[in-house]
Amino acid sequence: MTYPAPLAAAAQDETLELRPKFDADGLIAAIAQDADTGEVLMLAWMNAEALEQTLSSGRAVYWSRSRNTLWRKGDTSGHEQHVVEVRVDCDQDAVLLKVRQTGAACHTGRRACFYRIATPSGLKKD
Amino acid sequence: MTYPAPLAAAAQDETLELRPKFDADGLIAAIAQDADTGEVLMLAWMNAEALEQTLSSGRAVYWSRSRNTLWRKGDTSGHEQHVVEVRVDCDQDAVLLKVRQTGAACHTGRRACFYRIATPSGLKKD
Repeated sequence: MTYPAPLAAAAQDETLELRPKFDADGLIAAIAQDADTGEVLMLAWMNAEALEQTLSSGRAVYWSRSRNTLWRKGDTSGHEQHVVEVRVDCDQDAVLLKVRQTGAACHTGRRACFYRIATPSGLKKD
Repeated sequence: MTYPAPLAAAAQDETLELRPKFDADGLIAAIAQDADTGEVLMLAWMNAEALEQTLSSGRAVYWSRSRNTLWRKGDTSGHEQHVVEVRVDCDQDAVLLKVRQTGAACHTGRRACFYRIATPSGLKKD
């Protein structure tokens, strides 16, 4: 699976072709957001194959940087993400998934990964 | 500005110390979300100094990978981000900023960067 290369500057911002701008590791950032509540659930990573499978299957598929493998979310945990919409940002180096989350998005068992608030003096939990 | 190193696995997930997990370039991903509507506005990057300045100043400060410089959003464009809350994710390699955005978050002049929907056959604009 390969995508055409990114275009220059403003052309990339306006094109209607999917031309993901992968980083040196071949990855783009993927934000998963609850399609109903707007809660940001997690941030993960996709390579070209993960992006293509996400678009074609309607299930969120990521690239696991720790395990170096494709990771169709929920296949092990049961905590699937059903994709309602995929968006790309201006320069196409990030995607936003609006999802319906089964169970917990976070591996800690919490609904979402952003369960701590940061302050200048440290973190506090919800 | 330096932060203590990340802890191992579950300890990192539960610590109340801010221990950002920067990548090989010294950066973490930062999602900016509209504090009122929940709209995801943009994804950008922070180094340690950007994170510290964001926490201490209440203005969103990023690291510009294209210009290789700290970037206090709005200083040039007037499109400031006033930070209502900062959250970190489980392994602390991403932060979520809830912001009040002045004007446009996107350099194209659009309110948010995610103005194109991706489908298997290409992109379409809102």
